[in-house]
Amino acid sequence: MQQIAGGVCAPKGFLAGAAMAEIKKAGKYDVGLIVSEVEAAVAGVFTTNRVKAAPVIYSKKVVEGGRAKGIVLNSGNANACTGEQGMADCLAMGQAAASVLGTGAELVAVASTGVIGVEMPMDKVLPGVKKAGEALSTQGAHAVALAMMTTDTFAKETAVEISLAGHQVRIGGVAKGSGMIHPNMATMLGFITTDARIDAGVLQEALQEAAAESFNMITVDGDTSTNDTLLILANGLAGNSPPVTGSDDLRQFKAALSQVCRELAKMIARDGEGATKFLEVEVGGAGSLGDARQAARGIAGSSLAKAAFYGEDANWGRIICALGYSIETFDPDRVDIFLGELQVSKAGAGLPFSEEEAKEILSRKDIKVRVELNLGDFRATAWGCDLSHEYVTINGSYRT
Amino acid sequence: MQQIAGGVCAPKGFLAGAAMAEIKKAGKYDVGLIVSEVEAAVAGVFTTNRVKAAPVIYSKKVVEGGRAKGIVLNSGNANACTGEQGMADCLAMGQAAASVLGTGAELVAVASTGVIGVEMPMDKVLPGVKKAGEALSTQGAHAVALAMMTTDTFAKETAVEISLAGHQVRIGGVAKGSGMIHPNMATMLGFITTDARIDAGVLQEALQEAAAESFNMITVDGDTSTNDTLLILANGLAGNSPPVTGSDDLRQFKAALSQVCRELAKMIARDGEGATKFLEVEVGGAGSLGDARQAARGIAGSSLAKAAFYGEDANWGRIICALGYSIETFDPDRVDIFLGELQVSKAGAGLPFSEEEAKEILSRKDIKVRVELNLGDFRATAWGCDLSHEYVTINGSYRT
Repeated sequence: MQQIAGGVCAPKGFLAGAAMAEIKKAGKYDVGLIVSEVEAAVAGVFTTNRVKAAPVIYSKKVVEGGRAKGIVLNSGNANACTGEQGMADCLAMGQAAASVLGTGAELVAVASTGVIGVEMPMDKVLPGVKKAGEALSTQGAHAVALAMMTTDTFAKETAVEISLAGHQVRIGGVAKGSGMIHPNMATMLGFITTDARIDAGVLQEALQEAAAESFNMITVDGDTSTNDTLLILANGLAGNSPPVTGSDDLRQFKAALSQVCRELAKMIARDGEGATKFLEVEVGGAGSLGDARQAARGIAGSSLAKAAFYGEDANWGRIICALGYSIETFDPDRVDIFLGELQVSKAGAGLPFSEEEAKEILSRKDIKVRVELNLGDFRATAWGCDLSHEYVTINGSYRT
Repeated sequence: MQQIAGGVCAPKGFLAGAAMAEIKKAGKYDVGLIVSEVEAAVAGVFTTNRVKAAPVIYSKKVVEGGRAKGIVLNSGNANACTGEQGMADCLAMGQAAASVLGTGAELVAVASTGVIGVEMPMDKVLPGVKKAGEALSTQGAHAVALAMMTTDTFAKETAVEISLAGHQVRIGGVAKGSGMIHPNMATMLGFITTDARIDAGVLQEALQEAAAESFNMITVDGDTSTNDTLLILANGLAGNSPPVTGSDDLRQFKAALSQVCRELAKMIARDGEGATKFLEVEVGGAGSLGDARQAARGIAGSSLAKAAFYGEDANWGRIICALGYSIETFDPDRVDIFLGELQVSKAGAGLPFSEEEAKEILSRKDIKVRVELNLGDFRATAWGCDLSHEYVTINGSYRT
């Protein structure tokens, strides 16, 4: 597997384009299109929040159809809690994109991100879709990454190349997300393209598996959004034979897809609102994969642990406390805890450690926490960030 | 029901005393005793965190015995994650108190609060218990309230008087808590005294019911502590006939006990670490009591909603978003949301409202959020606080 440039335009036959429609501030990209030159298989996972934005409801139907030609998106407005008008606006946005692409609206997924509960400014959105269509090119991936950003401080793109039975297959991805990040099925917004030929059902299964260990393993603030959407388009232009269940080809494809999802997810955690540190929490020796994942994400999500990391305070008591309310099956008296390479707790009790060494580790920008339950063979990693003064500042005045 | 003074010493036959043992900073009370002159029925609820502090494990056994004569407590050290030494220290603390009271250690509950994972300074704790014993009096309630405090900014006491079939019955209570507050079965530390005569089994049931709608309905930071303990001692000196299941007397006693628990719980939420505002979240029209409670606590616990209240930003989208990930059974298109007396959302969509009026409501110190699901007849209230810069400051350097 090889890391390559190009983001969502890296795979054969994908174009992207963006426009500045002034849904956000003037001078910022806020409408984007990701398009396959030929009809593609589509798969998707969506927010589990009971309150779903109009584009989530709409794009689920597109995914049910199994085929798509493109994705139209905007930032600055989430089109959530906008009632019937929101559904009509979402349909109009899909139709505008379909008309640009010369295809049917049932082949265009829609995604929105931004403030909740405000009607879409369609007088800006519709011309924006048209302009984004005019900008479509194989060089447009980065502009689309910018068009997805809200409180994000950097664009999030990645791409890899693998070889499937002699065919060069590429997977590219783009994502956004910084706050309201505690995905359950998907992230805020993530779009993956691939030129692999693959059946939509197999693609859906591969996407779910990849999401489970990537986007579903990050947390910024414990708030699961109304708009989380992860979509993949597979247009088949690589010319490979579709990988079948159980094959080595499928295993390779899944590994590459997971890699792309994991890279994007980690970028979101790193760019968490107000974050000054990136946290990686690994939990090993768990009795089940579910427990390992839940424990890792529980620790990564603890407000108290996150505030302690911000303050560079080696308060490992908060780590074991978060472990204790996250899962049931473990023995507190067998838990070992490491901050970076420094063991701070053994068999559930404190070890004497050098405060200076701890301080040095906690002063780093990337901090690794490792917890060993010494119970079973399962292991999982979650990613998050610290809780800073800046998080409070950003979220005290997001809307106004 | 009448509000009275005196805290845990208000009921007949209860003494309290505290000492400054320098477990915390010099000049602060940090060891306390609450004692009944005669043996009392005891009931208790404890943290559901899988990691339990030594005093939680110890006091559970005392409660199983059904009888107790007193409670010994300290702040400054939680005696959690301290292994076998922690259990031995806890036992020594109970025995020291029992010897002061001239009773057996099996009749003395122990409670600790403070930093996790550090061994108890027994050279300070044991003399402290002796000094607290020397200070025992009917005027000692406030000193004990002070001795329980960690990051609390004020002492939390209350008491009420009711009449049970001609007998004057009093219930007094004291609590502490400010951070690591997301109780599940109990609060950080809460102690209730009553001179009512009541069977230990009935008392346990009454305490669980009261905790469910008081301590279990507050949240500061979503972190369930390792030390949560709520105990009640009922010494029978009021001379009433023990109220039996289904009786009007029991109904009255439960109402008074719930009132005491609710007042203490609200004080904890009001004193949440770094809090600048007190939040009351009422959810009505729910399909079940469990849903109403879970939804109210979910909204009160959302970091994003809490930060918006701190910033006085009428971002109701975060309220409905938190509702959506907290419960399953409701129709987003029937949800009405009120900030104070101002309706901001109707049938799941935004209402035009005056930003000025919203700003006036959100500038208050006490903010009420009301959410109507318009589905069923169940209703619950949760209490919390905003998420401020000061919360991050406090928790970035709690241990050091």
